[in-house]
Amino acid sequence: MVHLVQFWLKEEFKTAEICEKFEKSLQDLCKVDLSKQSSWGVPAAVEKRPVVDLSWDYNLVTEFSTVEDHDKYQSHPEHLKFLEENKGYWEKVLVIDSEIKFSV
Amino acid sequence: MVHLVQFWLKEEFKTAEICEKFEKSLQDLCKVDLSKQSSWGVPAAVEKRPVVDLSWDYNLVTEFSTVEDHDKYQSHPEHLKFLEENKGYWEKVLVIDSEIKFSV
Repeated sequence: MVHLVQFWLKEEFKTAEICEKFEKSLQDLCKVDLSKQSSWGVPAAVEKRPVVDLSWDYNLVTEFSTVEDHDKYQSHPEHLKFLEENKGYWEKVLVIDSEIKFSV
Repeated sequence: MVHLVQFWLKEEFKTAEICEKFEKSLQDLCKVDLSKQSSWGVPAAVEKRPVVDLSWDYNLVTEFSTVEDHDKYQSHPEHLKFLEENKGYWEKVLVIDSEIKFSV
């Protein structure tokens, strides 16, 4: 399954210092060994079209072999540490959890 | 970069016949050779939490090496065929395009 998390930071925390700290936290989270692969990103430099949401600041894309691994990740110490240290920075989080039916 | 497309189908098209046709179209789209990897999915069987959006019906996750490959994909004959044959089925589409900054 693919676990996508979109983050919208509070305006007052969009500083170089906080962003650097947040990016380091995302990087640490990517390394949690329950995931098959993990990455963090920012809005891509694509054409602005009405259907494209470029309003968010950061996202995290994590692939797990099973929903059980995702569930374990939710209570993993590194994940709890990430939440504890960073939850004050965002004003909104949106999660999209997908079961992969076909891949190539 | 990661190109994610969320699809919400119109209620009247959530039939076994249309869904089978739509899934076949997603599968064909995944095979377009401009992408590094591609998959389609449905909402995962995760716990319902306020931050998790499970309201959509299908999604497509496509990874491209560059924004240029994504741009070529937009006008690729298979992509145009997909839009032409399926655009009547959805009531909403949301695209999230991410530039990967770190991956593991």
